[in-house]
Amino acid sequence: MSTNSNPTSGFQFNHTMYRVKNYKASLDFYTRILGMSLLDSFEGGDFTLFFLAFDGAGSESERKASKFSREGVLELTYNHGTESQDVTYANGNTEPYRGFGHIAITVPDIVAACDYFEEQKVAWKKRLTDGKMRNIAFILDPDGYWIEIVENKMRI
Amino acid sequence: MSTNSNPTSGFQFNHTMYRVKNYKASLDFYTRILGMSLLDSFEGGDFTLFFLAFDGAGSESERKASKFSREGVLELTYNHGTESQDVTYANGNTEPYRGFGHIAITVPDIVAACDYFEEQKVAWKKRLTDGKMRNIAFILDPDGYWIEIVENKMRI
Repeated sequence: MSTNSNPTSGFQFNHTMYRVKNYKASLDFYTRILGMSLLDSFEGGDFTLFFLAFDGAGSESERKASKFSREGVLELTYNHGTESQDVTYANGNTEPYRGFGHIAITVPDIVAACDYFEEQKVAWKKRLTDGKMRNIAFILDPDGYWIEIVENKMRI
Repeated sequence: MSTNSNPTSGFQFNHTMYRVKNYKASLDFYTRILGMSLLDSFEGGDFTLFFLAFDGAGSESERKASKFSREGVLELTYNHGTESQDVTYANGNTEPYRGFGHIAITVPDIVAACDYFEEQKVAWKKRLTDGKMRNIAFILDPDGYWIEIVENKMRI
């Protein structure tokens, strides 16, 4: 029996992992377009893990150390060779394999953010002006994963 | 053209969303066992969204407001009635619908955390003592989503 009165003290929701087919396309998208920083990478034989986050400031050793001590980390798993194989990852939003839905990026100004994504020619699932919900948008990453864009001041 | 020299300034990786079949089982798991707080919920007709995070301190209005202004939020989507329907969500780790892999919770002491999860009779994908990697574990949420348990001091 645990004697700790609060056994979940210090727990953090550290990261979310999904698989990517072409790591070069994904790193370009998440760093150059979205503005995340690569905190660290880890090669495990036939796969490589990439750890990304916003505000990945500090020295290289500080960024590396932060990958398990902060929240908001995205871990991308690249299985070597998938970019030249018949591999398509499921984004989780199509029957019969629904489950995972999306990650969400909050932004200070959603109109400015969406204008910027237009300039960057990102693929859209839903522009701000599509559909009934005019305060959220969805862009697609290179594998087709949905990324919701929400203003950080939004109230629902 | 954007005139902002850093168009991604202020972006945050706010949340990860997946679908759950039985919201009561999921809320019990994520709050009572994992120790997350329910920041807010939103009912949208035939679905309800639940926003959860660790350290959801403060008043009710502060917690609600924080759901789009912080990182480390888990959004669970419950489509009404799924608990009594023939619905099984995909956890993303089985062919042919691989894609999403897991979320990860970092903990101060992984042995103590895993002892606690044993006491709570959680379902395991990989105990600490299974397989070759003795410094990570995977538990399963009520829908079978993988949750990696990692010590926040781990170095790879």
